[in-house]
Amino acid sequence: MSAPLFREMAVVGVGLIGGSLALAAKKAGLVGRVVGLDSDGAHREMVLASGMVDRVSDGLTGELSAADLVVLAVPVAEMAGLLPDVARWANGTCLVTDVGSVKGPILAAGDAAFPDGRFVAGHPIAGRERSGPAAARADLFEETNWIVTPSTRTDPRALERVAALWRGVGASVVAMEPAWHDEVFAAVSHLPHLVAYALMDAVLAMPRGEERLKFSAGGLRDFARVAASHPRMWRDIFLMNRDQILKVLTTYREALEGLEAAIRGGDGDALMARLSRARLAREEITHRS
Amino acid sequence: MSAPLFREMAVVGVGLIGGSLALAAKKAGLVGRVVGLDSDGAHREMVLASGMVDRVSDGLTGELSAADLVVLAVPVAEMAGLLPDVARWANGTCLVTDVGSVKGPILAAGDAAFPDGRFVAGHPIAGRERSGPAAARADLFEETNWIVTPSTRTDPRALERVAALWRGVGASVVAMEPAWHDEVFAAVSHLPHLVAYALMDAVLAMPRGEERLKFSAGGLRDFARVAASHPRMWRDIFLMNRDQILKVLTTYREALEGLEAAIRGGDGDALMARLSRARLAREEITHRS
Repeated sequence: MSAPLFREMAVVGVGLIGGSLALAAKKAGLVGRVVGLDSDGAHREMVLASGMVDRVSDGLTGELSAADLVVLAVPVAEMAGLLPDVARWANGTCLVTDVGSVKGPILAAGDAAFPDGRFVAGHPIAGRERSGPAAARADLFEETNWIVTPSTRTDPRALERVAALWRGVGASVVAMEPAWHDEVFAAVSHLPHLVAYALMDAVLAMPRGEERLKFSAGGLRDFARVAASHPRMWRDIFLMNRDQILKVLTTYREALEGLEAAIRGGDGDALMARLSRARLAREEITHRS
Repeated sequence: MSAPLFREMAVVGVGLIGGSLALAAKKAGLVGRVVGLDSDGAHREMVLASGMVDRVSDGLTGELSAADLVVLAVPVAEMAGLLPDVARWANGTCLVTDVGSVKGPILAAGDAAFPDGRFVAGHPIAGRERSGPAAARADLFEETNWIVTPSTRTDPRALERVAALWRGVGASVVAMEPAWHDEVFAAVSHLPHLVAYALMDAVLAMPRGEERLKFSAGGLRDFARVAASHPRMWRDIFLMNRDQILKVLTTYREALEGLEAAIRGGDGDALMARLSRARLAREEITHRS
């Protein structure tokens, strides 16, 4: 057997993503040992007992010194604050990466904490409805994209080693410019969630709203599922990617007003043109895969 | 074997819903013969060759006289215009029902065409992404709701016989006040579709919109599926249920503005309160079933 890609991987935040990466990387022989750092005692017990990690700790102090890779898999709002501590406790050649779904502010903090380019900002496009380490799966990243958003500071060799880990667990590596990443995901991920939350809030705010919900079929059920996912996580994402979200919201409001005007004016042709255009988007998405 | 509930059922518009009802009612022995009336020649050939119906015709003239039940399963915009013709060609004891997803205007036209109360306005809550008779299935209505919206004019015996047909194909019968039906479905079906269409239109209208779509994961894919369904059908529904849709759109816009204000102001607590409320809606829907 060849040597693993990393001797010791420290996963900070052993939830769905961190836990799945631990499982997948161990299964594929990509890492020697995994240490799990988590502030939640029940999670620590669970991931140690299940063998998902080899060692656990409730803090960074002293536990990072043996790692040659640190993966930050905490909520996005906590990433930037952790990076200086990771720089302080990790050894001077250790690579550091994250899995946050907003990249601009985290990349800036990572470059500041690791001016020699050892921080690699990443975003695996994977998830499940359930969260926490009990939802972790070794196959979570198979046939997904792992997006990497290097800066001019990022060390290309560091990027290549982290990319090899993600390829090893089944993901395709896609490089994107960080600001463009945050614009794209504001549109294709953050906005849809915001719209789903607004829709559920609106139905509940209507007269006899809960009674209406009992008649939900196809359409609303999909939205309800989207809107049921992790309010804290989405609060943090919405606040962290605020500027891009406000920008796509403006475009969305214009589209909605265009549909509303056509309905109000009874303009079937204008309505049909707008509804048919949306169908093209589906084809665009479907042809991609 | 007991006598069927209806000797001859005429299905006007043999698409997904009309075709599925023909299949299901024949399979359950609820109807003796089925005649399919459709303006689409390819559909007529298909439904006759497959045995979905016993006879076909391209118009109402003369073909309705033997029917003791006429089911209108054409697009909602065509229902009201057909009802006087059905009254003209059907025999004087024939029951008439429809499957339209907007009820107010259709019920008014039905009551006008059948002042003796033989029109029963209904709405089966069932569907598939695909449409047309080739998508028809005998089990489409199993464990679904069939909503009936009687007026003061509707004959209770007519209602009971039509309800027996829908129960016989596996649906539960739910009676609703017609205006309340149109309010409820504006909220839980029409608005979600409108919102999904607006979202897809908005992403396409953004700079490099098609490129963004290539990164769609969970959230947007669900919306794209919703927005890909039958633009003509949705145009007609949006126009026919216009007043109710404009009303729920106002509430929706307020909910969206509330979320936007919280994001703009960086108000995490207000945002969290709104996102958590949406989760309650999910529980409401889930506990229903």
